[in-house]
Amino acid sequence: MDVDKKYFSNITTRERAIFEGAISMGALFHQFVGTPVNKYTKNGLEKSMEDSLRLQPAIEDVNVKIRFDKLKESMTEFDYTSLNGDMLDVKIYAKVDNVKAIIRIEFIEELNYPLMYVENITED
Amino acid sequence: MDVDKKYFSNITTRERAIFEGAISMGALFHQFVGTPVNKYTKNGLEKSMEDSLRLQPAIEDVNVKIRFDKLKESMTEFDYTSLNGDMLDVKIYAKVDNVKAIIRIEFIEELNYPLMYVENITED
Amino acid sequence: MDVDKKYFSNITTRERAIFEGAISMGALFHQFVGTPVNKYTKNGLEKSMEDSLRLQPAIEDVNVKIRFDKLKESMTEFDYTSLNGDMLDVKIYAKVDNVKAIIRIEFIEELNYPLMYVENITED
Amino acid sequence: MDVDKKYFSNITTRERAIFEGAISMGALFHQFVGTPVNKYTKNGLEKSMEDSLRLQPAIEDVNVKIRFDKLKESMTEFDYTSLNGDMLDVKIYAKVDNVKAIIRIEFIEELNYPLMYVENITED
Repeated sequence: MDVDKKYFSNITTRERAIFEGAISMGALFHQFVGTPVNKYTKNGLEKSMEDSLRLQPAIEDVNVKIRFDKLKESMTEFDYTSLNGDMLDVKIYAKVDNVKAIIRIEFIEELNYPLMYVENITED
Repeated sequence: MDVDKKYFSNITTRERAIFEGAISMGALFHQFVGTPVNKYTKNGLEKSMEDSLRLQPAIEDVNVKIRFDKLKESMTEFDYTSLNGDMLDVKIYAKVDNVKAIIRIEFIEELNYPLMYVENITED
Repeated sequence: MDVDKKYFSNITTRERAIFEGAISMGALFHQFVGTPVNKYTKNGLEKSMEDSLRLQPAIEDVNVKIRFDKLKESMTEFDYTSLNGDMLDVKIYAKVDNVKAIIRIEFIEELNYPLMYVENITED
Repeated sequence: MDVDKKYFSNITTRERAIFEGAISMGALFHQFVGTPVNKYTKNGLEKSMEDSLRLQPAIEDVNVKIRFDKLKESMTEFDYTSLNGDMLDVKIYAKVDNVKAIIRIEFIEELNYPLMYVENITED
């Protein structure tokens, strides 16, 4: 079966790149929020999140930073906390044919909300 | 702050509708997969998934069906199972200005995979 | 197969009740943290969490309260937030033969941590 | 505050070890089920699951094996799948004072279910 032809011929290449990147950003947030984390496991968890999401269709690269300031803010008596959305600073690079879209999540103080948006989109 | 102007002026209305719907579809899958479910709790869980996702930006409606045949297939000795992606048949209706996008997930036998795609997109 | 005899004869009835209740408490936290919620969907989500967890072995009842004060604290510009552990006030009632154990999670200010513990355990 | 005295004096040391291990097993299952995985990311994901859970109270060690045969069974057209409970073969080592409990999950064919149980418990 030609999946692209059958299921994706109703949208443009730009739209497809945005679609795939956005799916993966929603996935990343809701898969990993709640995971126990502290400063010693932060780097390993970031890498594991990157490697998992990179498996999804059209995802070329993923860059995850768990914000250390937010991690410290919510630290508990037990020297770890649960990953929450406010800690996430992530870029997902989706590529479909000649289009590259960077989907971003970052915490925006003014909204008190980790916003997901299309940071950049380019066509070669 | 004008969030739309600041963060979303680089994409079209169609692209935005696809973006928001896709975020929510990735979210739905990764938030709820793993939830204990059986035939008695199926309807309540479907409704709770719909109500949760409808809160997200630009989501106008959500229709969740947990496939009963797939539910039965994976039923255990203990009369319940864990929700998995193959059971999901979901439509998310995203609306941005005059554009409506329907994002769908359904299990495709030929791919052995629950595919997410844009089922329909219209401009009034 | 006699599951109880094969897999659980090395622990007491009290220990089994604690075991099953604790499994379900860990499950509840990590399954549902991250779910979008606001004051309108709070009750429905509480019920769905209760119904799901009640399916697990030895769970007789589940009582979930999403703390409204904590919900308001983390409310965003978009009129909803993600469920986090600090909002959870939950009792899980596990019963094995004549033993009943109540497993509790509640946010403890002094620890800045949602603590899970055995609130009560009784033998008839 | 003496957490142990205030919240855990109503249960024995054995019971506490079982409690903490069981919490972490429920957590592990419901946190990570749904994560994208294939044969290349399997080892990294196992390590990340181990490192995360080891942060929780009383957890001394965690050993995660993602069953390769189950991983292959559910492989898709896209060369990855979502982690599910049937793939999990995990031992969590909880230690409280002189008691060590090994909490295990493994898929039991006869039950068509990934069973969690206390594999071993010893007092020094």
